[in-house]
Amino acid sequence: MLAVPLRPFCAFLAGLGLLCLAFVASWCQRWRGGFAWDGSARMFNWHPVLMVAGMVVLYGAAALVYRLPPAWRGPKLPWKLLHGALALTAFGLTVVGLVAVFGFHNASKTPNMYSLHSWLGLATVLLFSCQWLAGFSAFLLPYAPPWLRALYKPVHVFFGSTILMLSVASCVSGINEKLFFSLKNGTAPAPYNRLPPEAVFANTLGLLIVLFGVLVLCALAKPDWKRPEDGSTDTRQPLLGTER
Amino acid sequence: MLAVPLRPFCAFLAGLGLLCLAFVASWCQRWRGGFAWDGSARMFNWHPVLMVAGMVVLYGAAALVYRLPPAWRGPKLPWKLLHGALALTAFGLTVVGLVAVFGFHNASKTPNMYSLHSWLGLATVLLFSCQWLAGFSAFLLPYAPPWLRALYKPVHVFFGSTILMLSVASCVSGINEKLFFSLKNGTAPAPYNRLPPEAVFANTLGLLIVLFGVLVLCALAKPDWKRPEDGSTDTRQPLLGTER
Repeated sequence: MLAVPLRPFCAFLAGLGLLCLAFVASWCQRWRGGFAWDGSARMFNWHPVLMVAGMVVLYGAAALVYRLPPAWRGPKLPWKLLHGALALTAFGLTVVGLVAVFGFHNASKTPNMYSLHSWLGLATVLLFSCQWLAGFSAFLLPYAPPWLRALYKPVHVFFGSTILMLSVASCVSGINEKLFFSLKNGTAPAPYNRLPPEAVFANTLGLLIVLFGVLVLCALAKPDWKRPEDGSTDTRQPLLGTER
Repeated sequence: MLAVPLRPFCAFLAGLGLLCLAFVASWCQRWRGGFAWDGSARMFNWHPVLMVAGMVVLYGAAALVYRLPPAWRGPKLPWKLLHGALALTAFGLTVVGLVAVFGFHNASKTPNMYSLHSWLGLATVLLFSCQWLAGFSAFLLPYAPPWLRALYKPVHVFFGSTILMLSVASCVSGINEKLFFSLKNGTAPAPYNRLPPEAVFANTLGLLIVLFGVLVLCALAKPDWKRPEDGSTDTRQPLLGTER
């Protein structure tokens, strides 16, 4: 693929991830009333912020750990631990983000889990939990035999990209849905279909999230940015194993 | 990756693509009033059907042409032509699908291009048109030098998967949006949030589209399903060239 230098690309991605976070937090703070943990719409606002932070930005960072040049040399175990820890933190934020939306729905007597956004979003989080558990069991615990790890690794890599893609689709449908809810006909200064500033801002947030997801997938797909397989025993070293 | 036989996988994918088409057509026929070309909501109904047919099912078929074992042997040019023709047909259906929604909006004085779904969908179609034109210019016209083709090929492959992913995200947000529009509070037999049969059916359609997209990306990603690079001049044979 085109010769793009890795470090500036990663720096740009980090900036774009922070921009997504700034956009989603600003949207909720400026136009949706800010944040609280009281069952109100201000509790709901934690949902978009934490899902973007967990399932997109931090998830993307976890996926890219092995692409960083310092991870190419020396023992793999610290990078495995960083990858697993970032993914676990992303999962933790995601769970709190789900508690926020269920808490708001239950307090306001709104049904849960009816929209396609909610079905896809929950399926994505369930897949993520399976992915984390399977990755932890196969690559960090000492029980999986090498042939099973070799068989599972490309599956883990494929689902890594797939889950990010599904997260992005969930975010897009969620932002779209929230704007239809919030900017109904008669809303001041204008309904969604007249594109008030909030609509332009949140639509832009959606496109920034899509761009972030696509660029992370691009970085993962570039063959020359992959960690060279050095064949040392360390590449198969589990967390609790006795190798080396 | 896991050893799945290619032919049954492709047959399953073909069946799943047809199932997606049957679902979207049945949804519009049974619950949304059927089809017409008269500026009414029945004209709008062509939009979901043609976008799923063009940007998902036929697009997926075009992407998978080189994965079919008969394409692995002999001249590459017929498969290039099939790939380009399927993609062009997909693009044609997509354009008619866009005309259907713009025609309905204009006839009913509804603003165009305000939702995140519409922004992402149009961006996806624009990317697809660039992809087709660049692919045609580089791989079928005889003017591109081999180094340019070699440079562009992985970019074309990456954007091929990316556009399918964006199409799926556009479909999910579009189905979600349409259900909120159609199944408002007070709608018989029940609003969206009470999950009437239409909501379950269309949500299932959304998940089937996601599954189809993920499985196409899976087939594209499997290294042992890729056409072997035989290095013959034929792999670089353009449509109007004089090679061979």
